[in-house]
Amino acid sequence: MASEQYLDDLTVGLRFGSRRLVMDSSAIKRFAAEFDPQPFHLDEQAAQGTLFRGLAASGWHTAALTMRLLVESEFRPAGGIVGAGLEELQWPRPTRSGDELYVETEVLEVRPSKSRPAQGIVKVRVTTFNQMQEVLQMYVGNLVVQRRPS
Amino acid sequence: MASEQYLDDLTVGLRFGSRRLVMDSSAIKRFAAEFDPQPFHLDEQAAQGTLFRGLAASGWHTAALTMRLLVESEFRPAGGIVGAGLEELQWPRPTRSGDELYVETEVLEVRPSKSRPAQGIVKVRVTTFNQMQEVLQMYVGNLVVQRRPS
Repeated sequence: MASEQYLDDLTVGLRFGSRRLVMDSSAIKRFAAEFDPQPFHLDEQAAQGTLFRGLAASGWHTAALTMRLLVESEFRPAGGIVGAGLEELQWPRPTRSGDELYVETEVLEVRPSKSRPAQGIVKVRVTTFNQMQEVLQMYVGNLVVQRRPS
Repeated sequence: MASEQYLDDLTVGLRFGSRRLVMDSSAIKRFAAEFDPQPFHLDEQAAQGTLFRGLAASGWHTAALTMRLLVESEFRPAGGIVGAGLEELQWPRPTRSGDELYVETEVLEVRPSKSRPAQGIVKVRVTTFNQMQEVLQMYVGNLVVQRRPS
């Protein structure tokens, strides 16, 4: 499935993988300096005495990199990946320097829109793993996807 | 309330504001190039023919800037702002160039932990507005907050 997927092409249970992307400490600190300047995201020493017991990426950094991997994956809904919102988002463990991120997307639900016949909503579970297959992040989101033009 | 807040200092209904931060098109494109490289986040012309009908910030960019405003706000839970997860996240309208972001945090629930007596969970609603008081983003999140040392 290399080309764009219309709502009509997506069925419950379909799964899409991603490439792998390695997180490093300089990226963790750079993102944190701009968006989440807290000690446990900025400095190894300062992070030791915190809940994280060592440098940890901002959860929003994990979320942003997950989006990058999703956009580059084989999941290519027609009209782009446009999120209407999330039903839940979990960060079971922090992303660390050296973690190799991998994203798996599973289609949970496909609903044509009643009010807008040209589109519909696709519910997906997007899970971000590290190289140990540990879950770093999981969310369930609703995407707006175009229907195949008739 | 300028100093750190322990779990014991936080009560349901407390609200905290933030400073204001203006989004501009170069920031929108720079974030998108790194984390969400889709046409509607990268280029004004390309964005015209999409669902967004013009350049729009990635929802993850709005989320990341919201975190920045939250970290700089008067909401300063002891131990830092550490999210265990979100129960929902909505983006009712896209953030546009020129939007002036403002974040309001409201405490919804305060729960001491049974298994870990030194901490607890604070549920907050974090709403991001623009200068028209329109909601750009809203989430309900659970934060890990330290109790006052006895």
